[in-house]
Amino acid sequence: MDKSSKSWVRSEIQALTAYHVADPVGLIKLDNMENPYTWDASVEDAWLQKLKAAEINRYPDPASKQLDKALRKAFSIPEKYSVLLGNGSDELIQMICMALAKPGATVLSPAPTFVMYKMIAMFCNMNYQAVELNADFSLPTQAMLGAIAKHQPAVIYISYPNNPTGNLFNEDSICQLIEAAPGLVVLDEAYFSFANASFLPYLDKYTNLIVMRTVSKMGMAGLRLGYMVGHKEWIDEFNKVRLPFNINCLTQVTAEFALEHKAEFELQTQKICDARAKLFEEMASIDDIQCFDSAANFILFRTKAGEADRIYDSLKDAGILIRNLSAHGGLLADCLRVTVGKTEENKAFINALREIV
Amino acid sequence: MDKSSKSWVRSEIQALTAYHVADPVGLIKLDNMENPYTWDASVEDAWLQKLKAAEINRYPDPASKQLDKALRKAFSIPEKYSVLLGNGSDELIQMICMALAKPGATVLSPAPTFVMYKMIAMFCNMNYQAVELNADFSLPTQAMLGAIAKHQPAVIYISYPNNPTGNLFNEDSICQLIEAAPGLVVLDEAYFSFANASFLPYLDKYTNLIVMRTVSKMGMAGLRLGYMVGHKEWIDEFNKVRLPFNINCLTQVTAEFALEHKAEFELQTQKICDARAKLFEEMASIDDIQCFDSAANFILFRTKAGEADRIYDSLKDAGILIRNLSAHGGLLADCLRVTVGKTEENKAFINALREIV
Repeated sequence: MDKSSKSWVRSEIQALTAYHVADPVGLIKLDNMENPYTWDASVEDAWLQKLKAAEINRYPDPASKQLDKALRKAFSIPEKYSVLLGNGSDELIQMICMALAKPGATVLSPAPTFVMYKMIAMFCNMNYQAVELNADFSLPTQAMLGAIAKHQPAVIYISYPNNPTGNLFNEDSICQLIEAAPGLVVLDEAYFSFANASFLPYLDKYTNLIVMRTVSKMGMAGLRLGYMVGHKEWIDEFNKVRLPFNINCLTQVTAEFALEHKAEFELQTQKICDARAKLFEEMASIDDIQCFDSAANFILFRTKAGEADRIYDSLKDAGILIRNLSAHGGLLADCLRVTVGKTEENKAFINALREIV
Repeated sequence: MDKSSKSWVRSEIQALTAYHVADPVGLIKLDNMENPYTWDASVEDAWLQKLKAAEINRYPDPASKQLDKALRKAFSIPEKYSVLLGNGSDELIQMICMALAKPGATVLSPAPTFVMYKMIAMFCNMNYQAVELNADFSLPTQAMLGAIAKHQPAVIYISYPNNPTGNLFNEDSICQLIEAAPGLVVLDEAYFSFANASFLPYLDKYTNLIVMRTVSKMGMAGLRLGYMVGHKEWIDEFNKVRLPFNINCLTQVTAEFALEHKAEFELQTQKICDARAKLFEEMASIDDIQCFDSAANFILFRTKAGEADRIYDSLKDAGILIRNLSAHGGLLADCLRVTVGKTEENKAFINALREIV
């Protein structure tokens, strides 16, 4: 009898290689859309005092009631909508897919976009269909409408602003898709802090809309806390596949505390937005670099054909880690993505880039 | 067009009611197998100092390398085996199921047992088969062998000691099952701290064995950290369906710290084991209560027929929250489960129970 994993693990999982993350030790980290700023000492001390009260020996509140309240207050989420929390958006995407994974059900998204939509659809045995963005990264509305009619997707994921391209899709086009969608549409607003735009108000108009966000990009990537907001009829179903105590007590206490100090994060966000404008200007002034407008905390740019790997490697040699997306091909051929960091980090990046290009 | 969730959510999910947890506010909490002891002030201070160094603004180490090292050291896990971390055992069970959820694949376990084996099998679209324990809660070895032959399970979950019955199944019987299993066998050792028994050494003999544990019962239920140990060929596959940054930075830092202070937890565990013996003796002395030997930090007991709900409610009225399992029926009809608490908590429980019965 063959008891090896080969006989039992789904072949599409066997075919995967595990998600690879470059080791950042000793490098200026501009690869992963992190907020580079830490907390003031006084805020940190107040946080540690809060943690003292956390009951590590007890299971966390399964409903995260206090945190739910803090999120609603911080982001003006109306009482009539339901909120569901996950360990990062990843876990929320997984809950949605698990609940909707009828045999043959389809996940649709424009592409290139956040890779986990495709990965998690596969984890959950769902079909995944992608519609390629227009060359200027705008939403291919007609092609999306065609794909909706053809595939009748159970769920459509739209990243807003889109990762890794950084742009906000046209609002009216998205509305057209939501209206045409037979099932659910999830607006992934992971970068909404930097975008000044949100589909949250559209919940009043559309019952098949979910708005998903994370506290990662506002400065707490280490916490892995995501939340989604939507109509009760949907959220109640997703809540049934949520693992009962999914948000641990330290995350609950810390996120609640941080939301009470939201003003501090907003200052950081403003600094990042200012730095983004400056960085964009500097990058745009470099010959042989095409950079793309961004409403997020990163900038996608295209090198001369065949130059991306060399530039990525040379930046790494110079002590700067960004993300190389070139291997994805298609619209991302020759593309690199840099996260907006602190002033001195951005300067180091720009100087190195100038020299290397 | 009907865009309601009813058209899209899997019917078996719609049929579920969300996991209910009783609100413990103001009650003596003996319902959820928690370690009642907190940390000494000096240990707590040292922990807060560690947390100061956590980079909340950065994504956590996706491989949890430091914590992996600490776990291996604390629990003498040989280098040749692989370790995988999850947000509680729940997330590990989910990874295993997702990776093995070929169409028609089956999850098998003896029952009654930990309810999440069945729930998560369902979340992942797998068949779930249960084989009822013998009346004395021992493993029905022949019936299990029959079910293995018939259903050819992709994975068998065995809780060791079993929750909610508290007993350790016979070691030789489990070996027979592992040998007969065509696929994977997961020994869920959530309560191993209280049991003085483990299948970890059997990894040397069986390649189709995974040992799964959690730090919850050793005193960190709030952290939601589970780990599994097994042969690389299996763990590598499960790692592919792990969400990339699943263990947040606070959990990594805290668990690593706690494992360095393992001796403190072991003292607490010893106190709980001593209290269990005493509590058992007292409960056994009450007429009309049948209580069952336990190798875990809880004691299952059976009331007179039809009395469980009244006793549970009366205990709650007296300020003591335990778990009522009677509604599960079958072997658990008229059964209640009490977690071993602090001396004074156990005393309050015993006094109230005596009075109520």
